[in-house]
Amino acid sequence: MIHPLPPGTRDVLPDEARELRQLGGRLRAVFERDGYGEIQTPALEYEDVLRLGDDRAAGAAFRLFDDQGRVLVLRADGTIPAARLVANRFADAPLPLRLFYFAHAYRAVERGAAQSREFLQAGLELMGSDAPEGDAEIVAVVLEALSSAGLRRHRIGLGDASIYPLLLAQSGVPEAERATLLAHLQRRDLPALQADVDRLGLSAATRDMLLAPATLRGGPEVLERATGPLAVAVENLRRIHELVSERNGAEADRMIFDLGLAREMSYYTGTVFEVYDPAVGYALGGGGRYDDLCGKFGRPLPACGLALDVQRVHMAQLEEERLG
Amino acid sequence: MIHPLPPGTRDVLPDEARELRQLGGRLRAVFERDGYGEIQTPALEYEDVLRLGDDRAAGAAFRLFDDQGRVLVLRADGTIPAARLVANRFADAPLPLRLFYFAHAYRAVERGAAQSREFLQAGLELMGSDAPEGDAEIVAVVLEALSSAGLRRHRIGLGDASIYPLLLAQSGVPEAERATLLAHLQRRDLPALQADVDRLGLSAATRDMLLAPATLRGGPEVLERATGPLAVAVENLRRIHELVSERNGAEADRMIFDLGLAREMSYYTGTVFEVYDPAVGYALGGGGRYDDLCGKFGRPLPACGLALDVQRVHMAQLEEERLG
Repeated sequence: MIHPLPPGTRDVLPDEARELRQLGGRLRAVFERDGYGEIQTPALEYEDVLRLGDDRAAGAAFRLFDDQGRVLVLRADGTIPAARLVANRFADAPLPLRLFYFAHAYRAVERGAAQSREFLQAGLELMGSDAPEGDAEIVAVVLEALSSAGLRRHRIGLGDASIYPLLLAQSGVPEAERATLLAHLQRRDLPALQADVDRLGLSAATRDMLLAPATLRGGPEVLERATGPLAVAVENLRRIHELVSERNGAEADRMIFDLGLAREMSYYTGTVFEVYDPAVGYALGGGGRYDDLCGKFGRPLPACGLALDVQRVHMAQLEEERLG
Repeated sequence: MIHPLPPGTRDVLPDEARELRQLGGRLRAVFERDGYGEIQTPALEYEDVLRLGDDRAAGAAFRLFDDQGRVLVLRADGTIPAARLVANRFADAPLPLRLFYFAHAYRAVERGAAQSREFLQAGLELMGSDAPEGDAEIVAVVLEALSSAGLRRHRIGLGDASIYPLLLAQSGVPEAERATLLAHLQRRDLPALQADVDRLGLSAATRDMLLAPATLRGGPEVLERATGPLAVAVENLRRIHELVSERNGAEADRMIFDLGLAREMSYYTGTVFEVYDPAVGYALGGGGRYDDLCGKFGRPLPACGLALDVQRVHMAQLEEERLG
């Protein structure tokens, strides 16, 4: 008699739990060494409060009613609650604020997809620090934390969330259609993009302009090939590479520039990050710069952050060990 | 601009988070030293699965619908999910099973009451070990863990969940009325009990028999004064005291026998525990023996456990330090 669990949730048994504790402890030690302080926020928050940060409350999918009829949601990310906490509790604190959390987040899963509905995030948020310095610090701390946890093949991809909105605006795509095309670009679904380009009667030159960033992926040399409307974003990425190289040359080699990278969250305004390990076929985490988010809660601050999926990092560890 | 949080939930800032981490680490070190292995279960489970363990799914108050129309709840305790996990995943494991968890549980709060809706439990479950040996082990490990965390004044109250149901059955209270009287007894609400005794036309002798256990509270000497229908429960408590004394005499002095102690959960079948510290006015945790619970999930095992409220233990630590 096996009692079912909701799809996308799981039990963890002692051997794995011990390894996850060790992994968490190593990540936390690097975060604390670099001056980050841990915060905790409730798993349940008012939906209307989280929606101040993002229309979809970061994709919160689990809703329930309070005894007073207010809608509660299970948090779907750690960044919006952190911005809310900083507005409530750190109104006068000296800047920058360096915060981290280990917290479960909850999202809907597509039926049949092997996705997690509940997943443990190890997240860093650096608030009150501008690009490119803040971006470089987040990149360096995350790479060092993963190295300290024993990963050897991890990489971080860097793009810029401003690239596609800018190109779509310049390419004459009607505003009402931009979200659809952006979604294709985020999934790198080129056939769907091509179909919409045809449907909208856009030119081949426009299509090529939209696809160009997706072909620019690699070491810092790809930044030499990006021009025109991408210049500001590219200059920022180049500076991030310089700053990380000055701090830790070995870790800087893990940076992959990827101008086609787009992240799902609407609150990213600049650099976006995605963490990979070639030993596994999925991202280990992601993040980016969100300069407008804290202001929506009443405390305007340039900020950026990144969250790792602890279970996926653990899977990458195991897979690296297996591959030797 | 302060953004409200749901009543009974809170943010934790870095200084407190660091202390909570240290406290958790010390408790965990003792649990692991004594052979307990950590488990994790999902925060969201199917209500009909958890209700196998207890009619009210341990009081789960937060319900939501799956995309397939099934009812999910946020866990309200750690014991029912642990029993479910053991049936699913440890069908053939050697006994006893020693498990622990650090997990948030979620319960409804009364409006205006300063209760937590979300609280972190540090729980121990010992499955496959009979009374009194299993009960004594749980008592000893919990007392040692709290001492290791730096508490100096903590106490554990021990009662027996079988006492009141037995007395109610022997006193001629109609079965339909027993739950009401039991609830009064659990809250030690003697005026309400007196009113119901009058309403039901019970004798003064019956009332006195029901109230007698509530007056038996103190060191092992109170066990000498309990007789009649309480004899089996009292003999078990006496043996627990002996076993804990043999293992650790200093910790045994922290035991308070309290035959009026009753716990809310319906699944307790024998000894029940409640942890106190005179520095604060609320229980730091509780638990008991639940010999019928695992069988409801298909794996009959005698078992007992105890969960500490980590935040309350931390408050007791701070208050002990303040009092010096």
